Amino acid sequence: MVAYRDRGLQYGDGLFETMRVRRRSIRLLEYHVDRLYDGCRRLMIQAPNERVLRSELLRIAAQRAEGVLKLIVTRGSGARGYRPSGRERCTRIAALYAVPRGSAAATLDPARVRLCKTPLGMNAALAGLKTLNRLDSVLARSEWDDARIWEGLMRDADQNIVCGTMSNLFLRQGSSLLTPVLDRCGVAGVMRRWVLEQASALGLRAVQRRIRWEDLGEAEEVFMSNAVVGLMSIGEIQNKTLRIRPPEHNTASRLRARLELL
Amino acid sequence: MVAYRDRGLQYGDGLFETMRVRRRSIRLLEYHVDRLYDGCRRLMIQAPNERVLRSELLRIAAQRAEGVLKLIVTRGSGARGYRPSGRERCTRIAALYAVPRGSAAATLDPARVRLCKTPLGMNAALAGLKTLNRLDSVLARSEWDDARIWEGLMRDADQNIVCGTMSNLFLRQGSSLLTPVLDRCGVAGVMRRWVLEQASALGLRAVQRRIRWEDLGEAEEVFMSNAVVGLMSIGEIQNKTLRIRPPEHNTASRLRARLELL
Repeated sequence: MVAYRDRGLQYGDGLFETMRVRRRSIRLLEYHVDRLYDGCRRLMIQAPNERVLRSELLRIAAQRAEGVLKLIVTRGSGARGYRPSGRERCTRIAALYAVPRGSAAATLDPARVRLCKTPLGMNAALAGLKTLNRLDSVLARSEWDDARIWEGLMRDADQNIVCGTMSNLFLRQGSSLLTPVLDRCGVAGVMRRWVLEQASALGLRAVQRRIRWEDLGEAEEVFMSNAVVGLMSIGEIQNKTLRIRPPEHNTASRLRARLELL
Repeated sequence: MVAYRDRGLQYGDGLFETMRVRRRSIRLLEYHVDRLYDGCRRLMIQAPNERVLRSELLRIAAQRAEGVLKLIVTRGSGARGYRPSGRERCTRIAALYAVPRGSAAATLDPARVRLCKTPLGMNAALAGLKTLNRLDSVLARSEWDDARIWEGLMRDADQNIVCGTMSNLFLRQGSSLLTPVLDRCGVAGVMRRWVLEQASALGLRAVQRRIRWEDLGEAEEVFMSNAVVGLMSIGEIQNKTLRIRPPEHNTASRLRARLELL
């Protein structure tokens, strides 16, 4: 239970991380910690002690061989009104879940995605952060309940394609690995960061830029990334079938093989 | 206390109303109810029973002659993941507070305001609603702690002036009463609605349109509205002094006199 005066509830004044537990440990833990503390700095939230937090997370993760560990950090409880006093003590909430069915990439690979009508909220001050202000993702994810559709692509107000409701987007064109730039909206996923860092080892040049609908048609490969699911090849967008490359030329497959080594 | 699985905490998946209790009743109750239920429809939140909610609110309000009644309605608790099941039962939380010092308009009238750096989040799907996604207001209100400054003006990404962190903006130019249009961002305050409805009785023509910084300089009067505070004349914006009209030509004063009759 959480105090009703917690600013996480009152204003969505906080951040979260959704982590994949593998072999009783946390995949990409350092990246999650980095993003969380960066978010605390940007939102001026008094961050939890890093050593304590890390050991708590690892202790919880050890309870399951495979799972999903969700951590919420809020600014804490305060008086009424938007202004933080600066003396709030952050609240942290950790919960361990089973790995959802169908999130093992192989079972749905290649996945179907659709184009969402709900626009992404645009705010450069919050762009990239995984804050508790997630109504755009909630409304976008409410648009469909067909279980065969894995994800929905979201656009900003200028019709750029920015991300999925819960994942980041990558396109390969030749030796370029393109992903939408997240300077105005979208969450900078930890798996997105990992993919960008792997690009050069795969002989690819990573480029962050605006992505248009037309770019999807021109891409040789389309895949999406998520910290829990990993890498998901996209085989169909809005009923248009995409060509899937054989494994040795398939960037998502090659990245998955590397991810298995973590 | 609230369940940590409540989607209000997890995603800011809910709405709130901040109501002024006057003489043991709720000022503009019908407008608050209207906005809340409109928000529930737009977010597809199963709304609370209206008759039950109304009688709960009035029972709570009766506990104080003067006060502030805050109501939060969330989509309720759910499983992990953005998608609502559609079977959630909404959570409602009501809390009664004392009227904050200095919010009696007279004490600060005319008020000083500043221009905030934090941009408003823009999302046409959420524009006008008082959702629990309020990080833009939180960050904007964190920009100053000088108690002499009552409010901060917020701009969208295109530098239009849209609202305050907790209030709506009005300008009078001749017989026109201008207020920013809220089609892309901002909260449509209940006091804003009331002011717009009063305009014709005051011989003014209400116009909702984009407002630029230059418009503030050209205005004959600037005032702001808030459900708790009422109407606040603005006497200084970003260290620039504005001329204050005598009461009989002062729109905020005339509106305050009408508000007293409610």
